Amino acid sequence: MGVVVPFDSKDNASAASIDPLLQLVKADMDRVNQAILVRAKSHVDLIPELAHHLINSGGKRLRPMLTIAAAQMCGYDGEAHIKLATSVEFMHTATLLHDDVVDESDLRRGKKTARLIWGNQASVLVGDYLLGQAFKMMVETGSLEALRILSDASSVIAEGEVLQLAAANNTATTEDAYMQVIDAKTAALFAAAAEVGGVVADRPEEEKAALASYGRNLGIAFQLVDDALDYSGKEAEIGKNVGDDFREGKITLPVVLSYRRGDDIERKFWKRTLEEGDQTADDLKYAVKLMEKHNAISETKDRARHYGTIARDALDIFPDSAHKSALLEVIDFCVARVF
Amino acid sequence: MGVVVPFDSKDNASAASIDPLLQLVKADMDRVNQAILVRAKSHVDLIPELAHHLINSGGKRLRPMLTIAAAQMCGYDGEAHIKLATSVEFMHTATLLHDDVVDESDLRRGKKTARLIWGNQASVLVGDYLLGQAFKMMVETGSLEALRILSDASSVIAEGEVLQLAAANNTATTEDAYMQVIDAKTAALFAAAAEVGGVVADRPEEEKAALASYGRNLGIAFQLVDDALDYSGKEAEIGKNVGDDFREGKITLPVVLSYRRGDDIERKFWKRTLEEGDQTADDLKYAVKLMEKHNAISETKDRARHYGTIARDALDIFPDSAHKSALLEVIDFCVARVF
Repeated sequence: MGVVVPFDSKDNASAASIDPLLQLVKADMDRVNQAILVRAKSHVDLIPELAHHLINSGGKRLRPMLTIAAAQMCGYDGEAHIKLATSVEFMHTATLLHDDVVDESDLRRGKKTARLIWGNQASVLVGDYLLGQAFKMMVETGSLEALRILSDASSVIAEGEVLQLAAANNTATTEDAYMQVIDAKTAALFAAAAEVGGVVADRPEEEKAALASYGRNLGIAFQLVDDALDYSGKEAEIGKNVGDDFREGKITLPVVLSYRRGDDIERKFWKRTLEEGDQTADDLKYAVKLMEKHNAISETKDRARHYGTIARDALDIFPDSAHKSALLEVIDFCVARVF
Repeated sequence: MGVVVPFDSKDNASAASIDPLLQLVKADMDRVNQAILVRAKSHVDLIPELAHHLINSGGKRLRPMLTIAAAQMCGYDGEAHIKLATSVEFMHTATLLHDDVVDESDLRRGKKTARLIWGNQASVLVGDYLLGQAFKMMVETGSLEALRILSDASSVIAEGEVLQLAAANNTATTEDAYMQVIDAKTAALFAAAAEVGGVVADRPEEEKAALASYGRNLGIAFQLVDDALDYSGKEAEIGKNVGDDFREGKITLPVVLSYRRGDDIERKFWKRTLEEGDQTADDLKYAVKLMEKHNAISETKDRARHYGTIARDALDIFPDSAHKSALLEVIDFCVARVF
């Protein structure tokens, strides 16, 4: 995991766009968005109210798009991918609701979190409801293989969250241990989302494995860029406060690298601010300065490019197509994004 | 729902025991208990630690026993009922973990709640993990019908919890509205637990419906007796503080009946103590006194007997057997229990 492979399309990466993917999946994503609204309904008003807050909060819906794009690339012409994509988005939404409770977050994508408006209790329970609805939809597709993949992911995600909680505030976390956390809490759902697109299309094992590998490595790259942006992005662009991770004492890769490369005085700084939670107004600025000194932010982005390259290679076994090009461009887009 | 049918075996009810059921399901429940331990494992230590706390806390495991007993009564000789029963217990455990967070409870079955020991965050996430494991096991059985029934139950339970949250502290809740809450949050899992026993045995629709009806009405009776015991039980016997529901401002049937039958002064008392949460040391005692004045506790138990009778009638279509007798005796046991 330590080797950083240079990213060959690095120079073009800033021009990379998610638009080709958006165009290809648009018709099906309209149906997914429709299904999201229908399935978040309930005679208990609080459920759609709270669910819509999060659903309308401007997420890119990258995960369900992976399911749709993978199914389309595999030539699938049935209906099951709509329900599976909707399930994937509900699993993700449920995770966000529970995450915000666990992290005590007040802001997500620039909007107040559901837990701040409706309380932790409603966020926990509506998350549970959406998870139940996700499984109902999966069952409706009748695909036991998709159910196996997505229920596995559901367990792994929760396991990753607990692992992160157990390791919380430990500045001595190794890069390996950190990678294990994001592999579980972020990459597992990206992997499952892409893989089930191949499953409904009944493709051979090696293609399903390739889609899973693409999704997993894209997910890791995506998360690492997120980690970097939390210390380097502009608030209006990333839709959350810069320094949120710092203030919450979260150990992310830029911290892991800075801590390991720092001297004793610097390590004391990281321990005080992140382990003991003792922070003053200038600490964030100093944290960013230390990260720059050790190239921790730029090398976190290098690591992201490394996983992006693996995602790219994973798709090699598929013949060239508009879908393949769009999925490859999404890698560049994720790695180069500034928001 | 207003008619109270006298319970014909009322006189024998106090002698009713869960032992005949325990004997019949013992061998299979040993395997369920084994599966519970294996499936709560994780390389993330916090998960089995927290899960075992709740798993070992002395619950009767009534829900998985219903699955096992129903499958056995239906002549099932396969393996799937073990996994389904384990799934049912995990769904229940996950609900308890999330419930204690939502209710801010400190004590369950006489022991400190997981949230008090490990925190709300771990309780939310380990609940999610157990739910994921539950779905994994269901998928392993390959029964889409059992998956449909249990994923439906999962959504309905969460919906019921949100409904309860939305109606929380509303003393003007009607009996109908209250019954809707417990039908969803308690009875749905009892119904699903019994029904899937018939599903794995591949029994005709009317038998599966009968098992679901038995479970549903048993679940309602069970919950109503719980409500009554919270105001009338002895702490050491019910394993929680007497008056927990009162202190949490929970609206249960004894309150619904007392509020509706009370005069203006009494209603002011209920509003102050339960809606406004303004309680003094003597309020619980006075609440019990009002309940006795309006026969609210004894009539809550009468209502429980009413649903017990429906559960009893539901099993009529099954031929006499040791399992049928044991399941019928469980009704009497639940209705007559003092803990």
